[in-house]
Amino acid sequence: MNGVLRVAAGQCGAVPGDVQANLESVGRLTSDAAEAGADLLVLPEMILTGYGIGAEAVSRLAEPLDGPMLTRVGEIARDHGVALCLGHPERDGQDVYNSASFFDEHGERLTGGRKMHMFGDVDVEQFTRGDAVPAAARWRGTTVATAICYDIEFPETARALASAGAQLLCVPTANMVGFDVVSRLLVPARAAENQVFVVYANHTGTDPVFEYNGLSVVVGPDGQPLGTAGRGAEMVLADVDVEAIGAARAENDYLADRRSDLFG
Amino acid sequence: MNGVLRVAAGQCGAVPGDVQANLESVGRLTSDAAEAGADLLVLPEMILTGYGIGAEAVSRLAEPLDGPMLTRVGEIARDHGVALCLGHPERDGQDVYNSASFFDEHGERLTGGRKMHMFGDVDVEQFTRGDAVPAAARWRGTTVATAICYDIEFPETARALASAGAQLLCVPTANMVGFDVVSRLLVPARAAENQVFVVYANHTGTDPVFEYNGLSVVVGPDGQPLGTAGRGAEMVLADVDVEAIGAARAENDYLADRRSDLFG
Repeated sequence: MNGVLRVAAGQCGAVPGDVQANLESVGRLTSDAAEAGADLLVLPEMILTGYGIGAEAVSRLAEPLDGPMLTRVGEIARDHGVALCLGHPERDGQDVYNSASFFDEHGERLTGGRKMHMFGDVDVEQFTRGDAVPAAARWRGTTVATAICYDIEFPETARALASAGAQLLCVPTANMVGFDVVSRLLVPARAAENQVFVVYANHTGTDPVFEYNGLSVVVGPDGQPLGTAGRGAEMVLADVDVEAIGAARAENDYLADRRSDLFG
Repeated sequence: MNGVLRVAAGQCGAVPGDVQANLESVGRLTSDAAEAGADLLVLPEMILTGYGIGAEAVSRLAEPLDGPMLTRVGEIARDHGVALCLGHPERDGQDVYNSASFFDEHGERLTGGRKMHMFGDVDVEQFTRGDAVPAAARWRGTTVATAICYDIEFPETARALASAGAQLLCVPTANMVGFDVVSRLLVPARAAENQVFVVYANHTGTDPVFEYNGLSVVVGPDGQPLGTAGRGAEMVLADVDVEAIGAARAENDYLADRRSDLFG
């Protein structure tokens, strides 16, 4: 399988406010992903704490990137030899961000980023919005980058990441019942219009505020889903061959043909 | 039907190089649309001449916007009391553009524009590329704008038009076999991510160079198709209620929530 990476979207729920329980769940899912031959496991937004848990709990549980919560995530990645991308609250002084981190299979945090687009009251009340486009990073012959939930619904986000060279977008999300259009339409469109891979990993079940709609999906650079989850807990596996990006761009190349002179 | 407009996407073929035959076809289709109660008929890209007809023929047949070809189109719109949007070659001095024109039901050309994104050799050989975003115009309580074929595959185009106030995007196209993803995925995504209506009207059949894939579609502001054509000649009818745009934007408003400070 030269150059082919097996990716997993781990659709699961979080125990609201219980970091220890969620870290144990991350460990079990990473073990499952390793057994399934996965090179990378993407888990949902705010999976270490739960998403709709209120501003007080988010602020109390948020840690800097070098805090014990993410240190443990790096250890899990290293122990199982699987790269891990997931969402978590990030403290930076007085600010708390809705962040994603990408750890390689040696436990090193390669890249990540802060949610830029605030979804409704829940994001505004719980988080400071991020003001930087996440950085792309090289990982095993592929260029990866993160985006978070509502960010990927805006074509500007995926365009900026793909223009920076990203070939595999890892998207932790907490998408709710009533918004199936995101998994069915917008995420596949982001893959197709940039001719990249997208891994979109969602919550299932409920938390104190929301009911989540599942439908995690891995999409190829032609916009075709390589695997889609249902509504419940499930791990979606897909093989990602970055050579397919060149094939998709051979007939028409959106990044080359776009009018950056007109649209920036 | 207060405030509701009936729109038609007229999926049809062109007779390559025969403007007179194509104008007669436009007349018949406009008559059919009027009988079906349509307020607006959108027809394909370059429908007055055919699309894959070669640079010599395109240059020979191209006329300025006030030439006899488009004058006749305005008369057809007026005679049937139906607004008409279609594609045609446009001469401007030495340059020939791949253009669209929108005529109201009185035969007045309200707006239009030139194709900005060149698709492969066919566009590069036949046309000068347009360097301006098409202007939006008010028509019967709705703000309309045009885009052409490959233009709509770029999210930047629809974003710019919707940001300028457009609620109904009229898209003449000449999309080929092998590119079903445009009708199935990218056009619905443009509607959903901007919460606007899109009318995408394609060719059917063949010309000297290409085979077209049909699948003309009218999409609502929630990304759901209101009507989709098959592969052959067909008129897709749909009722467009601009009130639905407000409903779609009530829960989350992409144009309001986007980060123009980060992405322009």
